[in-house]
Amino acid sequence: MEKKLYVVGMGPGHVDMMTGRAMEVLKSVDTIGGYTTYTDLIRDFFPDKEWISTGMRKEIERCRACFEEANKGKKVALVCSGDAGVYGMASPVEELAPEFPEVEVIVVAGITAACSGAAVLGAPLSHDFCTVSLSDLLTPWEVIEKRLQAAIHGDFCMAIYNPSSHKRHDYLQKACDIMLAAGASPDRKCGIVRNIGREGEEGIVLTLGELRDTQVDMFSTVFVGNSNTKIINGRLVTPRGYSI
Amino acid sequence: MEKKLYVVGMGPGHVDMMTGRAMEVLKSVDTIGGYTTYTDLIRDFFPDKEWISTGMRKEIERCRACFEEANKGKKVALVCSGDAGVYGMASPVEELAPEFPEVEVIVVAGITAACSGAAVLGAPLSHDFCTVSLSDLLTPWEVIEKRLQAAIHGDFCMAIYNPSSHKRHDYLQKACDIMLAAGASPDRKCGIVRNIGREGEEGIVLTLGELRDTQVDMFSTVFVGNSNTKIINGRLVTPRGYSI
Repeated sequence: MEKKLYVVGMGPGHVDMMTGRAMEVLKSVDTIGGYTTYTDLIRDFFPDKEWISTGMRKEIERCRACFEEANKGKKVALVCSGDAGVYGMASPVEELAPEFPEVEVIVVAGITAACSGAAVLGAPLSHDFCTVSLSDLLTPWEVIEKRLQAAIHGDFCMAIYNPSSHKRHDYLQKACDIMLAAGASPDRKCGIVRNIGREGEEGIVLTLGELRDTQVDMFSTVFVGNSNTKIINGRLVTPRGYSI
Repeated sequence: MEKKLYVVGMGPGHVDMMTGRAMEVLKSVDTIGGYTTYTDLIRDFFPDKEWISTGMRKEIERCRACFEEANKGKKVALVCSGDAGVYGMASPVEELAPEFPEVEVIVVAGITAACSGAAVLGAPLSHDFCTVSLSDLLTPWEVIEKRLQAAIHGDFCMAIYNPSSHKRHDYLQKACDIMLAAGASPDRKCGIVRNIGREGEEGIVLTLGELRDTQVDMFSTVFVGNSNTKIINGRLVTPRGYSI
């Protein structure tokens, strides 16, 4: 197909955390769409583009606007923070694709916060891990609760996305209580990373008991180790099982 | 600290799937270490480096050799396929770090197969997901079994790493049987991606029942959808929950 819509993961923020392929795609397109906060991060690097920016909670309108531009013959990229797939726009774009049969969808992966945040802390996700989003805008809280329990029962390491927002300031505390009730020790090793890959990046390590009583903001990603996770030299490390 | 050891995720294979930051680090170092298969992929792009290559099952020797070079004052990068953290070398490096107190460890994230493979198939990991490795070299099979069960109980999407090897040709079949016994439908939507980001890349979608009876090779990553995952236009798509 000649008409193309790229869904591009731009990584945590700075353009140097994009892949070469993502950069080439963005250079090659006519139009870049995305959530305003993310398009603002890269606007200066691509001065000659047309832009489709929309605010929060306008996700489907944004995807549809990008498809419509592509359908007119423009080469379009829709950018997502982190990866294009992980809590990104690849999914709604693929769901809308049957409405635009002449447009080919191409997904370009990026570094998701689980990986970029883990690198700041050390190696917390070095064994089987899962991601859980605490946002209940699109997911019933009962499903989130079930997943937190299952993650503890399976002794997975975890990356917790969307741990807080203005309306959900106590969700991380609730999540910690669920994990503790599911059998996680209050000594379980955890971490928080703020502003991954952006100005003000900072990581801290703490226990699950301490995490329960810590307020995090919406620019944070939270990490919960498995039962073997250690703090070594101030770094959060999940052993893979080698004899060291 | 002036002495530095970088642990660098090089993504799925081609250098264009590395981040700009990973590329800059590799250009800046004196010495690049890694598993021979991975260093061979990038050797031509960095002609002026010293190399520390070792074969399979020599992971700790490789990490230690990189630390020793860094301790002599060389700037060293240890490369990993995919991400540096996810089943990568960041963890053993962080475990060894206390033996080399003058060497600063810096982890540089890369695109893990969960994300790069998902992009080939569509958007299979667009809701909470987990990764499970079927390799029992370092993990007891009972732990792997427990995690597969927990992943189904929590209705996570899944990326299955190391689904097969010469000695473990029936492990994926065993894993599918565990997931089916834990309540997953044989109609659950799944996918396989081979040679992600390399020559011969190919993805197929199929059901869990079909996956059970499919032989995959060691260059494959397997995806298992959650109970809502669909096949749309031949693409594997997990809805995020938007009204489309």
